[in-house]
Formats: sequence, C-alpha cells, structure tokens
Amino acid sequence: MKFTFTRLDGGVVERSFTLDGIPGILWAPESAPGPVPLVLLGHPGGLHAMHSRLAGRARASVLEHGFAAATIELPGGGERTRSAAAEQARSDLRRALATGEPVDEIVDRLVLPLVDKAVPEWQDALDALLALPEVRGPVGFSGGPIAIGIRLAVVEPRITAAVLFAGSFVPAATLDEARQVTIPLQVLLQWDDETNDRQASLNLFDAFGSEEKALHANMGGHAGVPQSEVTGGARFFARHSS
Amino acid sequence: MKFTFTRLDGGVVERSFTLDGIPGILWAPESAPGPVPLVLLGHPGGLHAMHSRLAGRARASVLEHGFAAATIELPGGGERTRSAAAEQARSDLRRALATGEPVDEIVDRLVLPLVDKAVPEWQDALDALLALPEVRGPVGFSGGPIAIGIRLAVVEPRITAAVLFAGSFVPAATLDEARQVTIPLQVLLQWDDETNDRQASLNLFDAFGSEEKALHANMGGHAGVPQSEVTGGARFFARHSS
Repeated sequence: MKFTFTRLDGGVVERSFTLDGIPGILWAPESAPGPVPLVLLGHPGGLHAMHSRLAGRARASVLEHGFAAATIELPGGGERTRSAAAEQARSDLRRALATGEPVDEIVDRLVLPLVDKAVPEWQDALDALLALPEVRGPVGFSGGPIAIGIRLAVVEPRITAAVLFAGSFVPAATLDEARQVTIPLQVLLQWDDETNDRQASLNLFDAFGSEEKALHANMGGHAGVPQSEVTGGARFFARHSS
Repeated sequence: MKFTFTRLDGGVVERSFTLDGIPGILWAPESAPGPVPLVLLGHPGGLHAMHSRLAGRARASVLEHGFAAATIELPGGGERTRSAAAEQARSDLRRALATGEPVDEIVDRLVLPLVDKAVPEWQDALDALLALPEVRGPVGFSGGPIAIGIRLAVVEPRITAAVLFAGSFVPAATLDEARQVTIPLQVLLQWDDETNDRQASLNLFDAFGSEEKALHANMGGHAGVPQSEVTGGARFFARHSS
C-alpha cells in the first residue's frame, strides 16, 4: 500500500493510495485516541467522478462517529483497464433494455465476473487497511454494487454490518447468496429508480437471511438517495461497532 | 383541559389531563427556553396498557430534541365507552380472519366510524395543547391507527409531518385519502406483521401523494418496531420543525 497524496479537509484526513496498482482513498479523523473502526465505501466505479459523493459519505462516518472510511477503484472503473467482455455485456444490456428483450443472461455476464474479480481486491485492501496502526475492526460495507456487498458479506467474516444499495441488476445466483447473509443489514431502495426493478429489490430484501435487516425506501431516482440516509447509514454502523 | 396528575421522570414532566371527559397525557421538557414544537402520539387504544411504550416514544422527542409530546385515548379505548357497532365489527373481523372470509366490508365498519369520531377529538386536543404557553407548532403525528394519521394529515393543516405505522387494516376509502396527503412522511412497516398484509402496506406507501416519503421496513412482528426507529422518528420530526 503506497500513499500518494494527502490532504486535510475540515477535520478529515484524506489519503489517496495505490495497492498492487489499484487506486484507493482512505479518510480518517484528523486526531483519534486510538485505532478506529472502518467502513468500506462501495460505488459503481469511477473514483474520480464519484469523489464528492464518496467524500460526503466518508465525512458522515469520520466526523460524527470517529470512524475511518476507505474505497478502492472497481475492476474496469476509472483509469483501470476495461474488460472487453464487460464492455460487450454493458452494450448488450443497453440494447436489450431499449428493445425490451430479456436481460437475465446479460446481467449474469456483466455482474458475476465483476464480483469474482472485485471481492478478492476488497479483501486485499482490507488486509492492508487493517494493518495500519490507525485502523481496526469492526468493518462495515456501504453502498453498491449490491452483488459485491452480498458476496463480501458472505465470504468475509471481518465485515460485521452492511448498508446495501438496491440499485443495480441482480443475477439469480446473487439472490441465492443473499439467503446466506446473516450480518445486520440496512437496504436502501430508491422507489422510482429508473434503472432498477422495484419488485426485484423487494424480493431481494425478503431473501436476505439476516435476523436484523431494515429496508429504507425513499422517493426519487437512482441518484437521489437523501442526505438523511447518509447520516443514518453512518449511525447504523456506529450502532453495530460496539 | 384539566390537568389531573403530574410527575417528573428524569428531565421529563408527564402530566395526565382530561379534555371533555377524554383522558390524555402531555410530556414536556422539565425546562425549556420557550414554547416547544409538539408531536402527537397515535396508538391502538388503551392509554394505560400502552403507557410505557408511549412514554418511551415521548422521551425520544422530549429529551433528544426538546419537543413536547401528547396523546389522548381513542374512542372505545381504555376506560371510554365502547361502541356496540365497533365491538360487533371487531368480533366479525376475528371470525372472518379465522375462516379466511373477505374482510373489506368489516374493516370499513370497524375503521371508518373510528376515524370520523377520533379525528375531531385529536383536533380539539390540538386546540387545547397549542393554547398552552409552553407548546407551539409545528406539530407532527406519529403512530397509528394509520387511517387516523392519514385523515389528520389531509384535514389538519397544523400537522406538518407524520411518522405512520402501516400496521392496521386500511379501508379502500383511506387508500384514496392517502393520495391527498402531501406532508413529509416516514412510514414504518413490520415485514412479518402477523395482522397486516405486506403488499397492501406497500401499495399504501406507493399511494401517498407526498413528495418526501420514506418507507422503513424492519424485521419482526406487529409489536417489534426497533428502538432505532423510535429515535429515528424523533429525529425526522426535528428535521422538519425548523
């Protein structure tokens, strides 16, 4: 893990890093009495374009609850090499949505290889982040793509709670994995999400095996998650970190 | 409005009152710099049996946000005279649920007269409460029966936000009224509510006309609303009181 750039912004230290060539960002309190819990911030890919939204989510955990927050670039996102197969699947998906053709097979081709590649990268990042003296568990995962959050929740015991964004297409295999999730969950759903099927999201929520799970549905489209859910998500992790 | 009993409990002044023979309770901060906003606490009837849960909800608003909170007994609830028609409807409903017969007509008979009688009583209580020097608007309504909350949200302009509990049978006429609601809403749903139909609650949430509405679904049965929603509801009113 190589730190490349540090800046201080109103009580939050933001450090860019690379880990085996993958760019990432770590946010932490300017001063803390000891190592602090960590929230991993999921996103759809493109750290640069997502920066201000990610920083806002990080600040809610860092400033209000004294947590650290971190993220890494997705496979094929931002400056990372795109996969020809993923680009093909993405273009097939756009075409199928436009013509109303079935998308299940395309979603599998798009999402499952991404999950298979991204999850070990998040786990490597977790190894490196938890080796820092200023960071400790418990670890929460927040955001999307929801299939990555679900896989992480199943395979990574260091992740003890998750706020998942039901805002992307979900392969049937992911729905099966959801039944194996047992950590406390908060699931965000945008009621009028133009890129998402509401009933599929409700079915996914129903499928989770967790004893403690809450669905928070808000009005508006894909990118309209209200600020109250950002602070509420940070509060959810704080509740599950003791 | 006649105050009958006052007690002080950890920073909260609880006063029992009667208003035209209807029992009620007012909770307020022990000390406040001036008149404070009010939250009306809805409940299924039976102030005495519901006291500890109502007091817990009141404390979340009084202690954390410096609000007042108040409630009155429902028609036919607690010590109030029962209506023979309502008792008949209640017993018809139990029988219909047990035998799987349709309940729509029974629900109309049970809920609509209750709403017609209760809502003007809540409005009278609001007149009396807002006339107290220590209380002012804005006013929130929290809880159930949801048909009472919906009617209040439509006819009572002093109510500016509501946390509604989707935990009771809803007449078709109430679903129509829901479309006329425009104030900010937070709707609570118990995912495995044994006395409630999940899809009907989702349809009701969808029907609300409010631009700002959020659905919070939690695991568990009718009475299992988690404490985080109690504090979250109080926070919702605080957000909408400035």
